[in-house]
Amino acid sequence: MEIEQYLEQEMPRIIDEWSSLLRIPSISCEASHKSDMYACAERWRELLLKAGMQKADVMPTTGNPIVYAEYMTDTCAPTVLVYGHYDVMPVEPLEQWRSNPFEPIVKDAKLYARGADDDKGQSFIQYAAFEYLRKHNRLKCNVKFILEGEEEIGSPALTPFMLEHKELLKCDIILVSDTSMISRDIPSITTGLRGLAYWQIEVTGPNRDLHSGHFGGAVANPINVLCKMLATITDEHGKITIPHFYDDVLPLSAEEKEMIQSIPFSEEQYKSAIGIDAVAGEEGYSTLERNSCRPSFDICGIWGGYTGEGSKTVIPSKAYAKVSCRLVPNQDHHTISEQFAEYIRTIAPQSVKVKVTPMHGGAGYVCPIDLPAYQAAAEAFEKAFGKKPVAARRGGSIPIIADFEQILEKKTILMGFGLEENAIHSPNESMDLNIFRQGIIAVTEFYNRLPNRL
Amino acid sequence: MEIEQYLEQEMPRIIDEWSSLLRIPSISCEASHKSDMYACAERWRELLLKAGMQKADVMPTTGNPIVYAEYMTDTCAPTVLVYGHYDVMPVEPLEQWRSNPFEPIVKDAKLYARGADDDKGQSFIQYAAFEYLRKHNRLKCNVKFILEGEEEIGSPALTPFMLEHKELLKCDIILVSDTSMISRDIPSITTGLRGLAYWQIEVTGPNRDLHSGHFGGAVANPINVLCKMLATITDEHGKITIPHFYDDVLPLSAEEKEMIQSIPFSEEQYKSAIGIDAVAGEEGYSTLERNSCRPSFDICGIWGGYTGEGSKTVIPSKAYAKVSCRLVPNQDHHTISEQFAEYIRTIAPQSVKVKVTPMHGGAGYVCPIDLPAYQAAAEAFEKAFGKKPVAARRGGSIPIIADFEQILEKKTILMGFGLEENAIHSPNESMDLNIFRQGIIAVTEFYNRLPNRL
Repeated sequence: MEIEQYLEQEMPRIIDEWSSLLRIPSISCEASHKSDMYACAERWRELLLKAGMQKADVMPTTGNPIVYAEYMTDTCAPTVLVYGHYDVMPVEPLEQWRSNPFEPIVKDAKLYARGADDDKGQSFIQYAAFEYLRKHNRLKCNVKFILEGEEEIGSPALTPFMLEHKELLKCDIILVSDTSMISRDIPSITTGLRGLAYWQIEVTGPNRDLHSGHFGGAVANPINVLCKMLATITDEHGKITIPHFYDDVLPLSAEEKEMIQSIPFSEEQYKSAIGIDAVAGEEGYSTLERNSCRPSFDICGIWGGYTGEGSKTVIPSKAYAKVSCRLVPNQDHHTISEQFAEYIRTIAPQSVKVKVTPMHGGAGYVCPIDLPAYQAAAEAFEKAFGKKPVAARRGGSIPIIADFEQILEKKTILMGFGLEENAIHSPNESMDLNIFRQGIIAVTEFYNRLPNRL
Repeated sequence: MEIEQYLEQEMPRIIDEWSSLLRIPSISCEASHKSDMYACAERWRELLLKAGMQKADVMPTTGNPIVYAEYMTDTCAPTVLVYGHYDVMPVEPLEQWRSNPFEPIVKDAKLYARGADDDKGQSFIQYAAFEYLRKHNRLKCNVKFILEGEEEIGSPALTPFMLEHKELLKCDIILVSDTSMISRDIPSITTGLRGLAYWQIEVTGPNRDLHSGHFGGAVANPINVLCKMLATITDEHGKITIPHFYDDVLPLSAEEKEMIQSIPFSEEQYKSAIGIDAVAGEEGYSTLERNSCRPSFDICGIWGGYTGEGSKTVIPSKAYAKVSCRLVPNQDHHTISEQFAEYIRTIAPQSVKVKVTPMHGGAGYVCPIDLPAYQAAAEAFEKAFGKKPVAARRGGSIPIIADFEQILEKKTILMGFGLEENAIHSPNESMDLNIFRQGIIAVTEFYNRLPNRL
């Protein structure tokens, strides 16, 4: 049966099985969801065996378990290692969801749920493509699946797992569906990712909350201090001021700049889609350069003092922020992490105590477009979407891609099918079911076109 | 019966009655406590009648009700208007309380509860003094009580109430117990208060939370912008940078500086009491000048983005702060409020929308120490505490004191019995029962010494 006909016939069942994963609230950063992590891993294991894997295991790690499955058909054929993650982001602010984040619903040809795209949806594209080829005996290569449960918290257990199971994970190419296309009309394959460094900052002033009338003006307010420190991290040109921060940033080549300029992009549409009047960022760079090829500094969360209704006049004892830098390939996140902590130590006034806790980090990645596997992916995209895909460096981070390269010594093809409008990490995350269908076709085409020597 | 003997005999009952007020969670800034406001007002009315007031009413206002009571004995004698408030501050962070904030407990001669000092405790000192004099027919003057339920939210209904009931509130002097002494060993009477202006700031960036990888560096982050704006409000010399902010600030006279220097004060003890290594504030001023006679800027609360466990990489749609300035006498809080909003408008970048909402404000106050009523209060303090009290300008704000002067055209004597260690507005608020007792004695002495012509 051809893939198009198969999908027409099987889609309701595929959505049912996919939904069984989406219903499990596998939020990795909240300890209360520990048992959901195991439930989700176990559900993946059942499904992978059902799809025709020869073996599938829920393997313990120092953190959440890893699901590993394999189908080995021909020792001479190349082996594809498919990576995905079954953990999801928190769902706050819950009141902005139009439906229960863990009760998938289909509306206007989109499926809404936390994880609908990132990454239960995209992983399920991989799953459905494998199932189709396997059931119809059209799989010419070996396939391994590895699904982790800690991607959204920086994959702390994955690197040790890889080091321990290098033989098990041996492969010729790694295939990951966890990135986005530029848009529905501009299919693209991600050829670069940014790195990440993330910290929590705690500023402690007085040993208890103080009345701002009795103490105001004479005692350092931890929130005032925190804001002042954070404000200095970027200057009026949008540059990050941490000493030596840009030392390892490679300048964009004329060729890279040209490739970015060739991407159809409307700044007006970009602004209107997210409801802003003006973009902002590093001077001398375009929006697409800023959000993909240049580092950035964002305060992801801040809190302290009285945040309830009305007005309370208080100097709080403590103030906190969660802050992150997106990094570019060649910047080492360990070095940046130390530079940041050192910088904060340097600027912290004596009137408060400041603690910087590194949360997680990862390196960036670049994939050369002359790689045979990249060529197979590009042709598969053209077949599925009717257009040659753009090779695009993107702004997000998948720190473990750099680890794959280092430990497994293989390149990764980022066949991502997300769309910006899918609102990953945000309320009302969704997956367009037509893109989902085209994604499954693209992955089957990739397997069909993969050359024997990689 | 003499007051000392009376208090020895009656203290358990007095604490019982006082506790009946403390048990009512009359938090004025939280709408859910509306019915508690009425319950607390009603309980005060019952108590005031029981203490011997000729009448006591719970009077409606545009907000929480006002309790008014009077005892008129002699039309030729002076009339004292006692002001207090029955509303209290919120109790967050609740986990830092060692006992239920609304279940008063006595431990080591201190009573612990929200409002134990501010202002149910201090108002009850006034109450007990009145009750003693009234029961023993020793009251030579007329006494009116007015207790409001919105002091902690800026007394929005009190000024209209005063304007409407000027005749009812007619008096010769106003007596308020809602301030602190310098310390247990340094009895003091507050002769000056700072004014206040308070705002909430809302910064809106994109119309939804964005993935910081896909957008970071290209879109203004509302928290980054908020921190940058707030950081500019004070400079490296601790000066407030809002244009024209200091225009109406009167310089401290040599005499005032001398009086402040004469106050016994140990900066080492001050720092160790609140657990800080260094004080901080406006250059060229001492700690006591900074926290009483100079304006200040404090961020009382800040929030935005992801504040839960772990790390979420997000550019939030919104960020918020609650900010306030303490003002000094002669600074107009309306003018400052407009200057602040105008300043924020000026510095807000085009990449975000900024909304400034004035929350409340009030003028400062100065009481001349040659006032006969001040002299009576000073003698009463000396009698009760065994030491001549220091005349001290303090840093807190009671905005309605300035309104009393403007509308009722009378001065206020601030006979306050608080202590810094009472931790008002903070967890584990308390009242020292010995100070409570001395306070009652001081108020009865004040009535005894009040001259017929004020």
